[in-house]
Amino acid sequence: MAGNTFGKHLSLTTFGESHGGAIGGILDGCPAGIVLDLDAIQHQLDRRKPGQSRLTTQRKESDRVVFHSGIFEGKTLGTPIGFSIPNQDARSKDYSHIKKQFRPSHADHTYQAKYGIRDYRGGGRASARETACRVVAGAIARQILPAVHIQAYVSAVGSLALDVPYQELNLSQTENNTVRCPDPAMAETFIQEIENARKAGDSLGGVVSCVIQGVPIGWGEPVFDRLHADLGKAMLSINAVKGFEYGSGFAGTRLHGSEHNDTYGADGRLLSNHSGGIQGGISNGADIYFRVAFKPTATIMLDQQGLSEEGDVVTVKGKGRHDPCVVPRAVPIVEAMAALVLADHMLAARLNSINNKK
Amino acid sequence: MAGNTFGKHLSLTTFGESHGGAIGGILDGCPAGIVLDLDAIQHQLDRRKPGQSRLTTQRKESDRVVFHSGIFEGKTLGTPIGFSIPNQDARSKDYSHIKKQFRPSHADHTYQAKYGIRDYRGGGRASARETACRVVAGAIARQILPAVHIQAYVSAVGSLALDVPYQELNLSQTENNTVRCPDPAMAETFIQEIENARKAGDSLGGVVSCVIQGVPIGWGEPVFDRLHADLGKAMLSINAVKGFEYGSGFAGTRLHGSEHNDTYGADGRLLSNHSGGIQGGISNGADIYFRVAFKPTATIMLDQQGLSEEGDVVTVKGKGRHDPCVVPRAVPIVEAMAALVLADHMLAARLNSINNKK
Amino acid sequence: MAGNTFGKHLSLTTFGESHGGAIGGILDGCPAGIVLDLDAIQHQLDRRKPGQSRLTTQRKESDRVVFHSGIFEGKTLGTPIGFSIPNQDARSKDYSHIKKQFRPSHADHTYQAKYGIRDYRGGGRASARETACRVVAGAIARQILPAVHIQAYVSAVGSLALDVPYQELNLSQTENNTVRCPDPAMAETFIQEIENARKAGDSLGGVVSCVIQGVPIGWGEPVFDRLHADLGKAMLSINAVKGFEYGSGFAGTRLHGSEHNDTYGADGRLLSNHSGGIQGGISNGADIYFRVAFKPTATIMLDQQGLSEEGDVVTVKGKGRHDPCVVPRAVPIVEAMAALVLADHMLAARLNSINNKK
Amino acid sequence: MAGNTFGKHLSLTTFGESHGGAIGGILDGCPAGIVLDLDAIQHQLDRRKPGQSRLTTQRKESDRVVFHSGIFEGKTLGTPIGFSIPNQDARSKDYSHIKKQFRPSHADHTYQAKYGIRDYRGGGRASARETACRVVAGAIARQILPAVHIQAYVSAVGSLALDVPYQELNLSQTENNTVRCPDPAMAETFIQEIENARKAGDSLGGVVSCVIQGVPIGWGEPVFDRLHADLGKAMLSINAVKGFEYGSGFAGTRLHGSEHNDTYGADGRLLSNHSGGIQGGISNGADIYFRVAFKPTATIMLDQQGLSEEGDVVTVKGKGRHDPCVVPRAVPIVEAMAALVLADHMLAARLNSINNKK
Repeated sequence: MAGNTFGKHLSLTTFGESHGGAIGGILDGCPAGIVLDLDAIQHQLDRRKPGQSRLTTQRKESDRVVFHSGIFEGKTLGTPIGFSIPNQDARSKDYSHIKKQFRPSHADHTYQAKYGIRDYRGGGRASARETACRVVAGAIARQILPAVHIQAYVSAVGSLALDVPYQELNLSQTENNTVRCPDPAMAETFIQEIENARKAGDSLGGVVSCVIQGVPIGWGEPVFDRLHADLGKAMLSINAVKGFEYGSGFAGTRLHGSEHNDTYGADGRLLSNHSGGIQGGISNGADIYFRVAFKPTATIMLDQQGLSEEGDVVTVKGKGRHDPCVVPRAVPIVEAMAALVLADHMLAARLNSINNKK
Repeated sequence: MAGNTFGKHLSLTTFGESHGGAIGGILDGCPAGIVLDLDAIQHQLDRRKPGQSRLTTQRKESDRVVFHSGIFEGKTLGTPIGFSIPNQDARSKDYSHIKKQFRPSHADHTYQAKYGIRDYRGGGRASARETACRVVAGAIARQILPAVHIQAYVSAVGSLALDVPYQELNLSQTENNTVRCPDPAMAETFIQEIENARKAGDSLGGVVSCVIQGVPIGWGEPVFDRLHADLGKAMLSINAVKGFEYGSGFAGTRLHGSEHNDTYGADGRLLSNHSGGIQGGISNGADIYFRVAFKPTATIMLDQQGLSEEGDVVTVKGKGRHDPCVVPRAVPIVEAMAALVLADHMLAARLNSINNKK
Repeated sequence: MAGNTFGKHLSLTTFGESHGGAIGGILDGCPAGIVLDLDAIQHQLDRRKPGQSRLTTQRKESDRVVFHSGIFEGKTLGTPIGFSIPNQDARSKDYSHIKKQFRPSHADHTYQAKYGIRDYRGGGRASARETACRVVAGAIARQILPAVHIQAYVSAVGSLALDVPYQELNLSQTENNTVRCPDPAMAETFIQEIENARKAGDSLGGVVSCVIQGVPIGWGEPVFDRLHADLGKAMLSINAVKGFEYGSGFAGTRLHGSEHNDTYGADGRLLSNHSGGIQGGISNGADIYFRVAFKPTATIMLDQQGLSEEGDVVTVKGKGRHDPCVVPRAVPIVEAMAALVLADHMLAARLNSINNKK
Repeated sequence: MAGNTFGKHLSLTTFGESHGGAIGGILDGCPAGIVLDLDAIQHQLDRRKPGQSRLTTQRKESDRVVFHSGIFEGKTLGTPIGFSIPNQDARSKDYSHIKKQFRPSHADHTYQAKYGIRDYRGGGRASARETACRVVAGAIARQILPAVHIQAYVSAVGSLALDVPYQELNLSQTENNTVRCPDPAMAETFIQEIENARKAGDSLGGVVSCVIQGVPIGWGEPVFDRLHADLGKAMLSINAVKGFEYGSGFAGTRLHGSEHNDTYGADGRLLSNHSGGIQGGISNGADIYFRVAFKPTATIMLDQQGLSEEGDVVTVKGKGRHDPCVVPRAVPIVEAMAALVLADHMLAARLNSINNKK
């Protein structure tokens, strides 16, 4: 398989360049008989789409998904679900200046070197526009897993961080603000910080945290396809991601084993959850939680030194329409990729036992 | 595929429980005609094996790998390389006390719940003993990639950290001490810290850093099989790993785009490398570097509250032979997994162009 | 992976039901930089499309393929090629009578039992309409392999057979008649036979033979992915196929080894080709040839005993628009699947040697 | 994946050259909790092993399989089952004469050209010795499917054929004679025919038929992984196989649809089974049956014209120990591959429905 398919049992293959005719995908392996809520799918796409607020790119895309197959009289058929999203507001001429230039910290140079050709318009295949397809598929995956609750939120923007355990947050408030931070005061601070960056023509990074509840014990396939390894790959496959940690993460490396171990209390329940809901690569029934690092958007409105195709340094003009900080729009993408991983592993777990009682 | 195969083109499948007859694997997809240095393979295994120093478990395993196929007159045949490593010093009776107990932060409970059965002796399949097979395969992968140099080292033990960029370290000194830290003074401190933990019957976590040099531009398969996503999955599939970050990582999220972008200098070379050698999921020719978080060893010599099979809290005795801190032995494992990922992507990159000039 | 993807390196995933909105697919792994002849692709589709002559179904579909991605300024980008073909002349009401009936020798019953739901209109996913997507992808695969020549033709219709070795036929005449038989006299006989069946409301089976020239020595991946095993699977995955044989096939089982072995002549060339161009699963440079058995079309215009959803015998009316014999339209499908297999194996063979000189 | 893995969910990877240290494999994806009958596994190996009678090669191999993992206290763990079979009676010097020669209709030339190196001893990886590993794995697969009955038998040797439908045979008599033909009289004729060929230093081909009973409705994954397509690939991946047909096969192409269609009788049961138990690629509950064509053994005891590495014609001496006709020993191999396919599809079918009631 080339690199555009994700998932072993529930498999998403995506296609599409940012300024081509359409983007889309095929979700294969979706079990039959699921009553699909198409509005819920469109709702997830709307959470990701550009132009939602001043925090995001002003590219206008209605991002209406069209389903071509796999659904009949409102239910999944068990056959592949083909879908597409037309590209509408693709101002390709905005990009003519980079036709023969490689922008700093973009994939222009690497794509050109790898393939000997690239669609330079809007980043082509390297554009985060591709993630809209993941959101569609992830929204279906969520409907395969009605008992699983997945909630991501923005926990850091630039050097500002919401250093509060998720248990102390009211995650249901996440969608109440444009930056998708469940703490209203911190949300305001985040928004201001992004505004400042935008006005300065600059950009910011950030962190998206994600909490998953309702996963039963037993999902995850050692030794290579551990549940957290697949979650990690899923997140690292999202544009601009630089790091992934789950449970106690990097901070947990500083504890002693006697502090870090999750021991059992009188009722047989875990007294802590440094494990992040996964032990030995298999879900243990506790909450799964993880954090994803996003770098500052590479496109900024300031001139920078890039490279010409001939190998000379050139000044790349700051132009185009971009997000000064990607994390607010990354929230539904993180959730979608998590949903795809979990649905894939729910299916995988059906294969483990001879009596298949799961 | 079930979860015991890693890699698409160069594929490693492993087998084996900690106290079974043997562990081993099959490496399929190794190109033909490579003159294999078998001593170099055994050398990597020796770096990983138990009983090297007081820092590691005292289990005695000679860990001699036996090759069964795929090699003829010293060269690879292009056919699968089958190998095994006998289990020798398996004191299974050390584990009879946990036959019906689930230890805190181990995979005992999750394996039992998932499969309805487990080999409780020494952790069974969940034991890090399985990683010896990865080291064998990784040592072969290194020989597929003679121009690529992979060097990992311990950069943190517990709360002590070597906060120095790798460029300022003499990585060739890494193997000079038992903790595998290239800074001699810090190595001494790390060793003392681990000794203290060991004496207290406790354990420590830590961080392994890894630097990869010599990767040409063009390896990595967007959009899902980005080079760093596969590196991340590889690392997260190693026992006890809680996090992965590459390039600027989590720290990079706090920078502005204007600071973070890797711009080009007068000679067309990159002026910085926050990208960590990868852009858009494809290697850009610069050094690849990343960090891996390891939790403190779950097995400690202190009594702790575990769970009985019946669901009651029980006291689990601290017994058996274990590493008070896994990071020194994790260094060759991290390198091995990195080598497997890189060799896999070297092969994948042969498929990208019609003229196949790579 | 669910069952709708074909090929390891060049991977086709298809979607679509016969009477849904569209059918289509994604071809991933196509090398970059190929100048695509889109007319040649449409030409192959036209060879397969319905309504070409009285021999085929009268369903009217223009079958114009639309490409959405992966092609830029006329060349392949190395990114996934997404495409779709709208369904136009879908007379779904023709099928209302079988909404709750299972037709004999159709997939109605098996789909319903497997998935608990089916799109009964025109056979849904089980319709041969899906093969149009294979023809699109196969036409691209042919352009990846300009030196390989693939030619299929009809060699039997019902009990009439063209028992002549392909070397004695002028294969360039294959497209000169509607039944795609290179022998003009036999073609006329075949056409008459199909006409008779059509008039009787009945159907016929047949055999498609295929010859592949220009494959170099070295394609095919033992031990499971032998070149002929993948060709066999490819053919058996086409609707209505009941058998596959290559080289000497079933007839070869009746020879002695001394007759069957392909020995070498004075110039080092093979004196015979019972092997069918493949030895040990690897192409040997000689012509590859094989035969594919197609059963008579299950849909006939005669009433037959089917099954109701409740399990009762019911009379299924002969209705709808169907091919009285599928082999003429199967010719481009057989060629397309062969092209997909060969392009996949051409890519696989790039991975075999350390020096990658292929 | 390189070409040495078979099966998506239940995956067998094999290793080993004919005269290397050992052959073996890893069976991954076997459900946990199966009480394994190890004697039954060895019994299948014994059916395949050389030296059983005058009909087979006189190479002496005890072919005792050793299991290294995945089994604990008699039950499967759900972890990979690693196993090996030592090579014992490998008279490599018998092959020194072909070190630099390519034998007619062997894989010598193609392996050398593909890989640039080969283990010439006993055919190396191309030897049918590898199929012993398939028999081990297939014997485990049978135990995953206790309700499925798989029985193969020899139905043709050279030009002699047992032209009787399987329903009219007493298949339980198959093992009563060395040629594995359920008709005692025909068995005697087959044996005599093989004896004659052996005495003449020549070889014969033949046909193995296989009947599978007890498969429920619903196994098989359209559109590419149809049950019969996977069975066909499985059979075509066996050494010396030239063809595969199921149900009515090639003979069925000569019938009209009105004759060929399997209609329903008064009790809702199928009145015929030209479909061979599979419709639309999915099992329909009826018997699955198919035929596999084996070419005459390429190794004969007569001198033949081969090729030197330099490209000259050379006389290859008839030497070594080989089967004059492979079909008797092929019977357990055909059954093993069928079992692997069926167990794989049994698992796949668990994924089709949202309610997973299968």
